[in-house]
Amino acid sequence: MRKPIIGIMGPGSNATEPDLNNAYQLGKLIAEQGWILLTGGRKAGVMDAASQGAKSANGLTLGILPGEDKTGISEAIDIAILTGMGSARNNINVLTSDVIISCGMGSGTASEIALALKAEKTVILLNDSRESHQFFSSLSPDHVIIVESPEEAIVRVRDILSRQDC
Amino acid sequence: MRKPIIGIMGPGSNATEPDLNNAYQLGKLIAEQGWILLTGGRKAGVMDAASQGAKSANGLTLGILPGEDKTGISEAIDIAILTGMGSARNNINVLTSDVIISCGMGSGTASEIALALKAEKTVILLNDSRESHQFFSSLSPDHVIIVESPEEAIVRVRDILSRQDC
Amino acid sequence: MRKPIIGIMGPGSNATEPDLNNAYQLGKLIAEQGWILLTGGRKAGVMDAASQGAKSANGLTLGILPGEDKTGISEAIDIAILTGMGSARNNINVLTSDVIISCGMGSGTASEIALALKAEKTVILLNDSRESHQFFSSLSPDHVIIVESPEEAIVRVRDILSRQDC
Amino acid sequence: MRKPIIGIMGPGSNATEPDLNNAYQLGKLIAEQGWILLTGGRKAGVMDAASQGAKSANGLTLGILPGEDKTGISEAIDIAILTGMGSARNNINVLTSDVIISCGMGSGTASEIALALKAEKTVILLNDSRESHQFFSSLSPDHVIIVESPEEAIVRVRDILSRQDC
Repeated sequence: MRKPIIGIMGPGSNATEPDLNNAYQLGKLIAEQGWILLTGGRKAGVMDAASQGAKSANGLTLGILPGEDKTGISEAIDIAILTGMGSARNNINVLTSDVIISCGMGSGTASEIALALKAEKTVILLNDSRESHQFFSSLSPDHVIIVESPEEAIVRVRDILSRQDC
Repeated sequence: MRKPIIGIMGPGSNATEPDLNNAYQLGKLIAEQGWILLTGGRKAGVMDAASQGAKSANGLTLGILPGEDKTGISEAIDIAILTGMGSARNNINVLTSDVIISCGMGSGTASEIALALKAEKTVILLNDSRESHQFFSSLSPDHVIIVESPEEAIVRVRDILSRQDC
Repeated sequence: MRKPIIGIMGPGSNATEPDLNNAYQLGKLIAEQGWILLTGGRKAGVMDAASQGAKSANGLTLGILPGEDKTGISEAIDIAILTGMGSARNNINVLTSDVIISCGMGSGTASEIALALKAEKTVILLNDSRESHQFFSSLSPDHVIIVESPEEAIVRVRDILSRQDC
Repeated sequence: MRKPIIGIMGPGSNATEPDLNNAYQLGKLIAEQGWILLTGGRKAGVMDAASQGAKSANGLTLGILPGEDKTGISEAIDIAILTGMGSARNNINVLTSDVIISCGMGSGTASEIALALKAEKTVILLNDSRESHQFFSSLSPDHVIIVESPEEAIVRVRDILSRQDC
């Protein structure tokens, strides 16, 4: 029985302080549930903070990197998948994740949310961008969940997993 | 000197009648400028309508397909690139296009707009989704242009190309 | 009715003088048949020579580039597909080509031949590497054809196309 | 400090009995060293046998799948990366592996060896195809090692890792 893989997607640059705190807390909570954390793997922003959080609770961290060598990987990544595909790897992030949590917002993050909705995956949004809430809810009302805290996100993930066949 | 490649991105399913009319008109106008039309290549929705429009004006049409064989390609595609990569091919669409016009809206289209903004390309939005206008403008105010008609889109493309090194 | 796309695969660096001459001649002959030439698109080795040959006969040249911008594209490429995927783009080269001609040998070229055989495409080998003839023939006796000249390669391509549904 | 990732590449179909025995033994030995095993992840041939061997010694198994859903994954895979990219994922297999062991031979396996050599990775060949030994040695004499047993392969991997910065 494979462990669930929960993807946290968020900006590498221009992440806000609340985004980074939320990402760290999400990573920690995911590890505490015994789930595997997936991120974009770089030593930057939300990816790095979430991975650090997961390692603080002895979780397993998986990074799907855009590059083709080991430059710039977060030290908190246990398993680094080197794709050499740039942003095309964003689709692998969402296909591989059982549930996606978007933490903060940026153009790369937006592409991952949209690709996840295209693949009919549920996406949990944790950010203060009202424009993103309205847009993604208009795109796919049944697959977008808006939450206010990391703890609420985890409750929703647990609920989704209980109804899935992982 | 290579000809400019203009990408039209839009929904394969659930395209509205105005979207399809706009796509056909955009394809026709692009061909009339002597530009190459790029789409996702399938025989569906905006992709197919734009390609039909371009062929009506003897344009050259390029399709970047998600599949690995010739099933489901629009008959109006002259050159079919078979990627076998599913939605990860959306990143190739935006990297290959000099300018991207989004016609209509859907989750695949949204991923292409977001990937284009990530790659710092300009995206022209032609649709009636106010949520999309507000969201993408909030993501990247300098790279998003909202237009009301195919003709206005073409004027903006011409302006962008005149400032680029294609 | 789409025109056939013929892929020429060969080394970018370390191409021999006979390889470059054969590539130029192959490109020219492909263009003279009215077929589209596909290469890896870079301004290097066999890719560049084949594209120059095709342009000498007013052919249409398609390049599937590994990079994500316009750096290093052969000037003889009419349509440049920017994949940003590095060597993973080799699979797109073979899926998109109706027939593959390998001209010269190297590790990238070998990967394309092997990917083509995996996809059950026919590969024509034009090179003086006896090791490659023996190895690829042992892998897939029914899909490997060894030829001695560009002219012979074209005869074999014409024969294969006549039995295919392009 | 990330654990080394050792990739075992081999045929999914048409694997011989000795190939399957070698793959199982290789997987077991890799796990016993504390290394992570990477395969193509499918429930077939060498991939499946190697993963079973690693699990018999409580190793961690990573599968890079060609598909976009959970169909056909080996039960012995702990972490399934869903790429949705078909054979283009072969390049991810080799970029992600610190050392590649090829066990048995087929066209997909040959593409992985060639892509690995293109990326200047060392490849260890364990098979009885003399044609493959001669061909790949001719391509890249410095990066191809031919071995006669799983035990010998592991000795060579340990030696390579001791000279690398993982």
